[in-house]
Amino acid sequence: MKLKEIGEFGLIRRMRSSLKDSQRNAVLGIGDDGAALKIAPGKLTLVTLDTLVENTHFKWDYASPRQVGWKALAVNISDIAAMGGVPTYCVVGLGLSGSLEVDLVDGLCEGLKEIAARYGIGIVGGDIVRSSEFFITVCLLGEVAGGRICSRSGAKVGDLIFVTGELGAAAAGLACLGTAEVRLESGKRELLVQKHLRPSPRLKEGQWIAARRIATAMIDISDGLISDFSRIREESRVGAVLWEEAIPVAPPAVELARSLGRSPQDWALYGGEDYELLFTASPDKRKLLDEEAPFPFSVIGEVCQWQEGMVLKEAEGRHMRIEEQGYNHLADAPRSGKRP
Amino acid sequence: MKLKEIGEFGLIRRMRSSLKDSQRNAVLGIGDDGAALKIAPGKLTLVTLDTLVENTHFKWDYASPRQVGWKALAVNISDIAAMGGVPTYCVVGLGLSGSLEVDLVDGLCEGLKEIAARYGIGIVGGDIVRSSEFFITVCLLGEVAGGRICSRSGAKVGDLIFVTGELGAAAAGLACLGTAEVRLESGKRELLVQKHLRPSPRLKEGQWIAARRIATAMIDISDGLISDFSRIREESRVGAVLWEEAIPVAPPAVELARSLGRSPQDWALYGGEDYELLFTASPDKRKLLDEEAPFPFSVIGEVCQWQEGMVLKEAEGRHMRIEEQGYNHLADAPRSGKRP
Repeated sequence: MKLKEIGEFGLIRRMRSSLKDSQRNAVLGIGDDGAALKIAPGKLTLVTLDTLVENTHFKWDYASPRQVGWKALAVNISDIAAMGGVPTYCVVGLGLSGSLEVDLVDGLCEGLKEIAARYGIGIVGGDIVRSSEFFITVCLLGEVAGGRICSRSGAKVGDLIFVTGELGAAAAGLACLGTAEVRLESGKRELLVQKHLRPSPRLKEGQWIAARRIATAMIDISDGLISDFSRIREESRVGAVLWEEAIPVAPPAVELARSLGRSPQDWALYGGEDYELLFTASPDKRKLLDEEAPFPFSVIGEVCQWQEGMVLKEAEGRHMRIEEQGYNHLADAPRSGKRP
Repeated sequence: MKLKEIGEFGLIRRMRSSLKDSQRNAVLGIGDDGAALKIAPGKLTLVTLDTLVENTHFKWDYASPRQVGWKALAVNISDIAAMGGVPTYCVVGLGLSGSLEVDLVDGLCEGLKEIAARYGIGIVGGDIVRSSEFFITVCLLGEVAGGRICSRSGAKVGDLIFVTGELGAAAAGLACLGTAEVRLESGKRELLVQKHLRPSPRLKEGQWIAARRIATAMIDISDGLISDFSRIREESRVGAVLWEEAIPVAPPAVELARSLGRSPQDWALYGGEDYELLFTASPDKRKLLDEEAPFPFSVIGEVCQWQEGMVLKEAEGRHMRIEEQGYNHLADAPRSGKRP
């Protein structure tokens, strides 16, 4: 059987089952945003690892080395944010072909340095290997006070579903990069493209939520709202009703989608790479968020029983069952914002 | 300028200079076997990362998935061994194409599990990405009591140079895999091939050396004796005289080299992947090693002044200056055991 037949979720399930007795005494292991380990007293050490591959995650014809360096670390910071943690140190692995220009590596370093300085992270080592296809792997460590960690597994029936910021902008940015004619003010186009190429992980937001023990489960939106919620669903054994009208779509993404005859909701639901935080919380936390959260957020649905699956309640009141295939890292098709 | 023009050493030097102010307060940062961080009181946390890439580090036509899984973790354990540490937890990144067989990932997991169990390591997470070329990245954490850590930078003029075990077997194993006609008993051939495909990191040896504070500098032999010593040379600002006759070459490698008309010394000096430990120590530690070391080792040379470079003292007494190019991860040519 081929990997594309069982898909990414199937493969993770299979590996997890194979490796289930090999995790020693990890507090959180395979299947969350990162691992949580008891290395020092009074806190948990977090470990997360993410790779960007040329032609899978970006193309050099639109992404600069500096942007790729930034994003390679940003996507890992986003995982630490989703655990409520503070990022500390990283190591960087590069797969390079000898025919690449030295400037490219200089640019990667500039991007890495810029974001590392912004978030107070030390870059402390790594590895260089020869590879015909370029890739950059970052392994990022972080820490969080023991009781504050947010996993994916605590969502309860009756919880509300929240998301920070707005969705769909990164997918719209990718569409801009792939479309010659974009009918959009250049400032708006730039905003969308930046959201795709140079995402800002919601670190302060994650820490604020974790410090107040608001979230019962939290994840960052990397693969898309539906795909990422289905990971919470799987870990917490719950279902969800999402309120289509409540899902915050970035206005320039709405404008672009209309001009291209595409669905902005699809970008918001399936586009991915927004790196906003998606979390569940008891309804009694809503007041605290409404009154004190120093960042924008939306309430987009409600946690229900596992058997109910994932349902989208449309503006007209219709309930649509959601197919949960989301983004499959092992499918052949390039990333797209299409509703499955 | 192309990367292959500045080479791997040049690139590491360049990245290190670019990133020198981005390391926060790492105890050991870029340029050693791994990083050492002060995360918990009374010990240092070690972090190392290594990647194996299909067609660069192995070919599927002779390496099984289980062997690749084993080796991907083994090469990282070897880095922790070279720091005198104890490996604890790892995360694994996979670059996979959807057209690979599911069995391949099952095999990788088996190899990872087997070596993780052998060395008491937890496998606690990872990442899967789509990549046309297969790769496996392992980021391994470890720990070591603060005063025991062995870096690459403490070698002193007058120190002796030691190596554990025997050299050249891994390069000979690779030669077996690439040669249809090998005139060698099958048991010996198997031993050489296993040394290449399924290396045993010298973890106990590294810990024994570190616990007694014997080594002034230590590194594992991954790229070859000359290449790896030149890293100690660079970090410690010293030179070396290596005694050719004292370099321990594995007997089946000698036998194979003779039958192929190749130089066994070249395999030992430049072949790499033996994953033995190379260390320097004051001459007054030799007695302790001779009397108590529970593992085989050889004294192969002496540390001298930086300006003297690296010199090979041949059996006939001639001194040959050694070119230090060693294995260059960014060169186009495939790995070989040839003297440069």
